[in-house]
Amino acid sequence: MAKRRLNVGLIGYQFMGKAHSNAYRQVGRFFDLPVEVGMKTLCGRNEAAVAKAAETFGWEGIATDWRTVVADPNIDIVDVATPGDSHAEIAIAAAEAGKIVFCEKPIGNTLEEAERMLAAVEKAGVPNAVFHNYRKAPAVALAKRMIEEGRIGRVFHFRATYLQDWIVDPEFPLVWRLQKDRAGSGSHGDLNAHLIDTARYLVGEFGEVCAHMETFVKERPLVGEIDDKLGATASTEKGEVTVDDAVIVLAKFQSGALGTFEATRFALGRKNYNRWEINGSKGSIVFNVERMNELEYYDNADPSGLQGFRLIQATDGGHPYAGRYWPVAHIIGYEHTFVNLVADALTAIHEERPISPDFRDGLRNQRVLDACDRSHRSRGWIAL
Amino acid sequence: MAKRRLNVGLIGYQFMGKAHSNAYRQVGRFFDLPVEVGMKTLCGRNEAAVAKAAETFGWEGIATDWRTVVADPNIDIVDVATPGDSHAEIAIAAAEAGKIVFCEKPIGNTLEEAERMLAAVEKAGVPNAVFHNYRKAPAVALAKRMIEEGRIGRVFHFRATYLQDWIVDPEFPLVWRLQKDRAGSGSHGDLNAHLIDTARYLVGEFGEVCAHMETFVKERPLVGEIDDKLGATASTEKGEVTVDDAVIVLAKFQSGALGTFEATRFALGRKNYNRWEINGSKGSIVFNVERMNELEYYDNADPSGLQGFRLIQATDGGHPYAGRYWPVAHIIGYEHTFVNLVADALTAIHEERPISPDFRDGLRNQRVLDACDRSHRSRGWIAL
Amino acid sequence: MAKRRLNVGLIGYQFMGKAHSNAYRQVGRFFDLPVEVGMKTLCGRNEAAVAKAAETFGWEGIATDWRTVVADPNIDIVDVATPGDSHAEIAIAAAEAGKIVFCEKPIGNTLEEAERMLAAVEKAGVPNAVFHNYRKAPAVALAKRMIEEGRIGRVFHFRATYLQDWIVDPEFPLVWRLQKDRAGSGSHGDLNAHLIDTARYLVGEFGEVCAHMETFVKERPLVGEIDDKLGATASTEKGEVTVDDAVIVLAKFQSGALGTFEATRFALGRKNYNRWEINGSKGSIVFNVERMNELEYYDNADPSGLQGFRLIQATDGGHPYAGRYWPVAHIIGYEHTFVNLVADALTAIHEERPISPDFRDGLRNQRVLDACDRSHRSRGWIAL
Amino acid sequence: MAKRRLNVGLIGYQFMGKAHSNAYRQVGRFFDLPVEVGMKTLCGRNEAAVAKAAETFGWEGIATDWRTVVADPNIDIVDVATPGDSHAEIAIAAAEAGKIVFCEKPIGNTLEEAERMLAAVEKAGVPNAVFHNYRKAPAVALAKRMIEEGRIGRVFHFRATYLQDWIVDPEFPLVWRLQKDRAGSGSHGDLNAHLIDTARYLVGEFGEVCAHMETFVKERPLVGEIDDKLGATASTEKGEVTVDDAVIVLAKFQSGALGTFEATRFALGRKNYNRWEINGSKGSIVFNVERMNELEYYDNADPSGLQGFRLIQATDGGHPYAGRYWPVAHIIGYEHTFVNLVADALTAIHEERPISPDFRDGLRNQRVLDACDRSHRSRGWIAL
Repeated sequence: MAKRRLNVGLIGYQFMGKAHSNAYRQVGRFFDLPVEVGMKTLCGRNEAAVAKAAETFGWEGIATDWRTVVADPNIDIVDVATPGDSHAEIAIAAAEAGKIVFCEKPIGNTLEEAERMLAAVEKAGVPNAVFHNYRKAPAVALAKRMIEEGRIGRVFHFRATYLQDWIVDPEFPLVWRLQKDRAGSGSHGDLNAHLIDTARYLVGEFGEVCAHMETFVKERPLVGEIDDKLGATASTEKGEVTVDDAVIVLAKFQSGALGTFEATRFALGRKNYNRWEINGSKGSIVFNVERMNELEYYDNADPSGLQGFRLIQATDGGHPYAGRYWPVAHIIGYEHTFVNLVADALTAIHEERPISPDFRDGLRNQRVLDACDRSHRSRGWIAL
Repeated sequence: MAKRRLNVGLIGYQFMGKAHSNAYRQVGRFFDLPVEVGMKTLCGRNEAAVAKAAETFGWEGIATDWRTVVADPNIDIVDVATPGDSHAEIAIAAAEAGKIVFCEKPIGNTLEEAERMLAAVEKAGVPNAVFHNYRKAPAVALAKRMIEEGRIGRVFHFRATYLQDWIVDPEFPLVWRLQKDRAGSGSHGDLNAHLIDTARYLVGEFGEVCAHMETFVKERPLVGEIDDKLGATASTEKGEVTVDDAVIVLAKFQSGALGTFEATRFALGRKNYNRWEINGSKGSIVFNVERMNELEYYDNADPSGLQGFRLIQATDGGHPYAGRYWPVAHIIGYEHTFVNLVADALTAIHEERPISPDFRDGLRNQRVLDACDRSHRSRGWIAL
Repeated sequence: MAKRRLNVGLIGYQFMGKAHSNAYRQVGRFFDLPVEVGMKTLCGRNEAAVAKAAETFGWEGIATDWRTVVADPNIDIVDVATPGDSHAEIAIAAAEAGKIVFCEKPIGNTLEEAERMLAAVEKAGVPNAVFHNYRKAPAVALAKRMIEEGRIGRVFHFRATYLQDWIVDPEFPLVWRLQKDRAGSGSHGDLNAHLIDTARYLVGEFGEVCAHMETFVKERPLVGEIDDKLGATASTEKGEVTVDDAVIVLAKFQSGALGTFEATRFALGRKNYNRWEINGSKGSIVFNVERMNELEYYDNADPSGLQGFRLIQATDGGHPYAGRYWPVAHIIGYEHTFVNLVADALTAIHEERPISPDFRDGLRNQRVLDACDRSHRSRGWIAL
Repeated sequence: MAKRRLNVGLIGYQFMGKAHSNAYRQVGRFFDLPVEVGMKTLCGRNEAAVAKAAETFGWEGIATDWRTVVADPNIDIVDVATPGDSHAEIAIAAAEAGKIVFCEKPIGNTLEEAERMLAAVEKAGVPNAVFHNYRKAPAVALAKRMIEEGRIGRVFHFRATYLQDWIVDPEFPLVWRLQKDRAGSGSHGDLNAHLIDTARYLVGEFGEVCAHMETFVKERPLVGEIDDKLGATASTEKGEVTVDDAVIVLAKFQSGALGTFEATRFALGRKNYNRWEINGSKGSIVFNVERMNELEYYDNADPSGLQGFRLIQATDGGHPYAGRYWPVAHIIGYEHTFVNLVADALTAIHEERPISPDFRDGLRNQRVLDACDRSHRSRGWIAL
């Protein structure tokens, strides 16, 4: 019997568009899925560019208006991979059209958007997912399994940093990610949202937060003409940076665990340093996206004198996802977290289970982001 | 104008077949190639299994006899990804049929086979490649570039180990890789061949070698019935292990540099520890496949007091291959070395340049393997 | 001409007493000092125990009342290495007696004590030092030199953690370090005080802090009888833990840099993990006491494609202090930070320069500790 | 009752003289020994220099002729810390005079010397020790204990490198360590001797070796005048380097284990990289002197999916020696290996047990060194 085929319409064809496209193209090559994926339509406003991307990424057709994708009866899944300012409008329309809705993180630019988005998918009763892809790294999924097995015990501490360095140069131009109306926020929504999702996934819900945000470079050159060869060129004119360069947060989880969070684009030498550590009453675990195939684990039950952090290579058949790919220690990369997420989502749809993470996760994430924002402005702790 | 399409016929559908298939499927998605790849035919002796693999991996058709692939006028490239005992026969027939010939490493099971294989492709004048894929890791290609730029200076030392641990258990069965008639040798041809290729690529040709091989476990359970669910099951009967478990080698390069090599399947905890270090008169570099996105580099010209090994993440746009994939520090994995190799090979074919590495590299590699073998038997040094 | 001899009276003979004694005994063996050190008197309340310690550590005589040491005209330096609750009384008396005063960190248990202590040494005009020993690790002193040379540029971030795990077990008894009246505070004064000193030393003065403290285990077994063989034994009765188990802090420096601090005794697997990282506009540096001979350094001026964190072994003749000991990469240990501190202090005394760090540093440290404490209670930011 | 006092006469006051002196001075401060050490006489040919050293290091008196030390009835232990060419003469005379004899490694410059030295101490019946100090690092002693407890199982591989970089510059002068008549050999006796001792200590006796030595820089500037400020200055004249710059060795142990050894002074960036790894049937261990407080351990009995190399900090009370010093993770350094060795030796003397390592170890080490030397010249394997 032929498998059900789910046709995807992907809105957005830049960095995330490339990563999502790869996931749809590859997922059936490594996972034995109960459904088939159809790479139906890639959508973007620049027709020439989207046509080129569609050919490169392997899409059957293109669209230049997301409304045509949402209206297309042949589309089953609408995947929103645009900048944050258009997530809500597209996702809500897709839900209202009865589509399965996938959405890049963070779910929206504001809490209000996120609430409307969740309401829309719930009202429509459509499956929905948010691309908190790092949940799907084998080492992170292993961490989750270890916590569920009780290997870490009562959690005392979660400490997380997401460090990058791509805008330390004050002459770096004012791209969309540095504009609040497009991006919603800076490091906070882009990077800290990942840490918050991991925290919720592994430690549980937040109780209170206290945050501070900083913009180290207040003005930057405006983006000038787009040159086909050189990309965006910097203008001599300057504009205001309207998002945070860095955010630091203290948190208390509902469980009583303490959390510290730091997300910044001003940490020279750190490129994609999404690193977190959990300390519990039975053990500790450490993860870093830059070495995403590894998980460090301290087991307090190891014999005295022989204790120490173990470097687990989460790459063998017994580790989540890893057996789908290559033999042990033949590592996978960033793109595979998207493949794994899509595999899980498609399986959940087939089995009529909620997808993890879904819009409820997206909303809860947004609530923490919003609470941090309010804490920053009120200079005090905010309860969730 | 439409690009030239090169149709591939791939012989073999196990581990290497999966890796090669992925490379053909993905190469055009990340590289802007001057030719197109057609995934025409996947070939294997078990029709049901090969049909399933072809569907999973994305091949248009299947064959159960490699001769039909070699004879197929629609096939441009014959890719030999079978165990070593059939490389020579297939590759030579393919060359004689005028096909471009790609071949897994090591090129053959014996020096004599390798010589006949090179003679065949040279006589036929067909492009040819050997899958020494680790040359194509961005960090290794970066190392090559740094050496060519003179950053390492005169090389004094090359020290390399390829450590695995999958047969430490004496009850592990006598699979084909442990049988000389199928595999040619054990760790030597499987693992040491990789180190030798890296050495030739980065340091140059060998002058003399002195080797010792060891089989720690002399007998193992015969492989029993193949069960569809469980795979091979161990029999109670035992058979002789006819290949080396480990090989250790001293080498002197033609340049005067010294080399040490160790390949083993008996190093508990080491899963795919293909690690090498080069010490030169101006600097040192270190690589390990288990962290294949990284290269360590010591620059002796750094200011006194500030010297130290740098951990380079070979993942940004300025690093070989890396710009084709994801932003800096969003790592790639094992499979991408094959994608990069295929991209390079197809480009070289289009530009009518020799492919690197090709059958000459394969033969020279085999000469070193053979010299080590003779050294082991003669208990002394062998000149190349 | 004979060197001036400075006689020391050391109050306290436990862990810190042992470390200070070693420093006095060793300093003249490695440093060519302008003065001599006399190990005159070791002081403690238990006569038998202090006599044994004095013999082991190499002191000429003993005292059982610190007042006799302070009153002794043959004593030049009074070194206070007792628990925090007696620092102020002893140090003030010593200053009033005209002694040079050395004191363990933190300077006192309260801000008021610290203020009185500084006032006393300033009124008496006596040299004074606080044992923030980690300043004196070669790698930390190298970091200071690099910052002063402008290699890091404008500092954006300081992130520091001091993690230990010795009281995770709820059956660990209520020792003096867990009692507020003896220790003043828990992780905060014991561990966070080190981080705060490092921050002030390398980044500058604090502007504002926001802190949260937590006591995960509220009650613990009382310490029972002291058994000569077994040490303290746990009683079946329980008492209240009156200090913090962990503290987390957000900070803004006067320079505009952001800081995060975390000190805890509840991080399983972390034994003495005093680790900090500084990110500036020109480079980054990282240090960890557990590998105290190393400093990681990222230089943004390194050539593109060759950038990465360098692992500097701060052990050669060009590094601060290191040339006094052994050849490069023959590492030194924890105790040498005390030797270096004493060497610096004695030299400064001879040259009539202020000692670094001194009581002013101790007081400023205490002000930050106190501000954190008030922030914790007020649930908001406190300016310094 | 007063402890027996053993008076030491130390011959040599350079690098090793400093390290041995520190050990005698410190050993009683950390270990509760059954005997006392008297630092009686420091001996060297340059009276002014030795007098200064004696004062700095804490010796009671000096001598300028080792014969007076050997003849001194107040001396119990003669410790030979001179270059290798005088070890045999002094040690034999000391033994004949009935002294306890301690000697730096390697025991002599030739096998014949080592044999005569062992014969002398055996004939005299005097306790004797060789300073293979790295045996006494806590992490190495822990490794020994783990092997004896059966945690590693049957050993398959020992791989060891001792890498330094201090003579890569061809203008570095022809110091005594580069002259065969003074030093005996180069990297081989200086560095490889350490690896060989570790191998014998942890794996057992050698069966066969095959070695190659290389001198990369054949001529170097002669050492010119000794300037009190600048030390040795290079002359414009050149002399022949008569020792090896590097040595590489294959080995087969009597147990059947394989070994690889590499010692070099031409590995830029490696300062004191004495690193070895043992792979057995139950686990693996790894050590590196540059991080001498740590031992990596892979336990194959760890649960599947949770296996990985553990980073043990061999610094707590349960680890060999470590409890004598500081709390866990407050690291010790290079010098403490000598303190530990002296503590063990003095205890063994008191208990009338053989010291480990002693002259028999020194001789067996020399036999391996000699076999390597003969193998290098014969270009083949040499049995021991």
